[in-house]
Amino acid sequence: MDFKTDFKPLTIEPDKIYDYSFSIIKEEMGAHDFSEEEWMVVRRIIHASADFELGRSVMFNGDAIQAGINAIRKGRHVIVDVQMIESGTGKKRFQKYGGDLHCYISDEDVMKEAKRQNTTRAIISMQKAVRENEGGIYAIGNAPTALLELIRLIKEGIAKPDLIIGMPVGFVSAAESKEELAKLKDIPFITNVGRKGGSTVTVAALNAISILADQVK
Amino acid sequence: MDFKTDFKPLTIEPDKIYDYSFSIIKEEMGAHDFSEEEWMVVRRIIHASADFELGRSVMFNGDAIQAGINAIRKGRHVIVDVQMIESGTGKKRFQKYGGDLHCYISDEDVMKEAKRQNTTRAIISMQKAVRENEGGIYAIGNAPTALLELIRLIKEGIAKPDLIIGMPVGFVSAAESKEELAKLKDIPFITNVGRKGGSTVTVAALNAISILADQVK
Repeated sequence: MDFKTDFKPLTIEPDKIYDYSFSIIKEEMGAHDFSEEEWMVVRRIIHASADFELGRSVMFNGDAIQAGINAIRKGRHVIVDVQMIESGTGKKRFQKYGGDLHCYISDEDVMKEAKRQNTTRAIISMQKAVRENEGGIYAIGNAPTALLELIRLIKEGIAKPDLIIGMPVGFVSAAESKEELAKLKDIPFITNVGRKGGSTVTVAALNAISILADQVK
Repeated sequence: MDFKTDFKPLTIEPDKIYDYSFSIIKEEMGAHDFSEEEWMVVRRIIHASADFELGRSVMFNGDAIQAGINAIRKGRHVIVDVQMIESGTGKKRFQKYGGDLHCYISDEDVMKEAKRQNTTRAIISMQKAVRENEGGIYAIGNAPTALLELIRLIKEGIAKPDLIIGMPVGFVSAAESKEELAKLKDIPFITNVGRKGGSTVTVAALNAISILADQVK
């Protein structure tokens, strides 16, 4: 086989790869009801998943994007449920406003307490997050139990996030945790319907909002 | 709204969450042609994506799982294309045999060289990986250009991985890069057909194989 006759990528110029991707996504998506700014988030979720069904299932509540932008600009912190989201998210766009990313799930005190209670580290890490942060953006892409615990803390009046990005993935409680989130009419949130989600799409949403924080007036 | 009447998760006991998930996946998957060991990998990919279509599209070549197990047990290194995969993968199961995880994409020399050539850091990071490692497991879940470059290095006789897990996601070159991988009949690989893939499913495959390395005779 002669390599020279094989597939050559359309481009290897980094900036152009994004541009091409977004133009393909726009064309294949066709009609939708997302606002212009919502679409900036949704197209990144589709870009990260290659899944239009997932993209179409995304829901926004309570002027979620503006709430996220405001929180970033105020230097509010971003709390994520797992390290994959932490490592995939561009931190600089938060840090320049004074905020930072926090992931408590592997903290020693969290691990110890979860073991003691025979519960998930995700639950204990949310309790710690709410103790240690005022408001903040909560981006949960993996653990339904983290999202359910955060919802419980909100209902009990203990937590008041600026924005929740709630897109855990999976077969046990993931879809249900998002249904519970969707009932919180007073909290700005971004979520999706169904079992799909995950760290990569949560990162995509978080990055999209932090980019908008730099661009939108 | 009374919280007590709302949804309660089926379980919050960490071990049971996996067990429940796998039993749901098995039931909903129904008939398939995967071997017992292949299924250990595929069910984790489905678990990470909640996507049976993606699970069904997974392909194995050249006794891929056994090749991966052998490489792990020989202490061969694992090379990943992005930090999200590095942070999501359980390192201890590789380190106990003497191997480790490497991600070169944010190395200073890699970034500098990519900028100089106006190419992707992914491409340059694969060149570095091949220079620095004998064999090894290459797990690529994000950058099609990384996978295409690795394929080029194999065809030129410069690289000879023990196993490739090639599941990049996206709209520009992702599906095509996997088609190119599928032509390498002499290299053990795990890949999937189409645009879907990503860091989380690549982590799932890598974790599944490292778990099998501890269990299989």
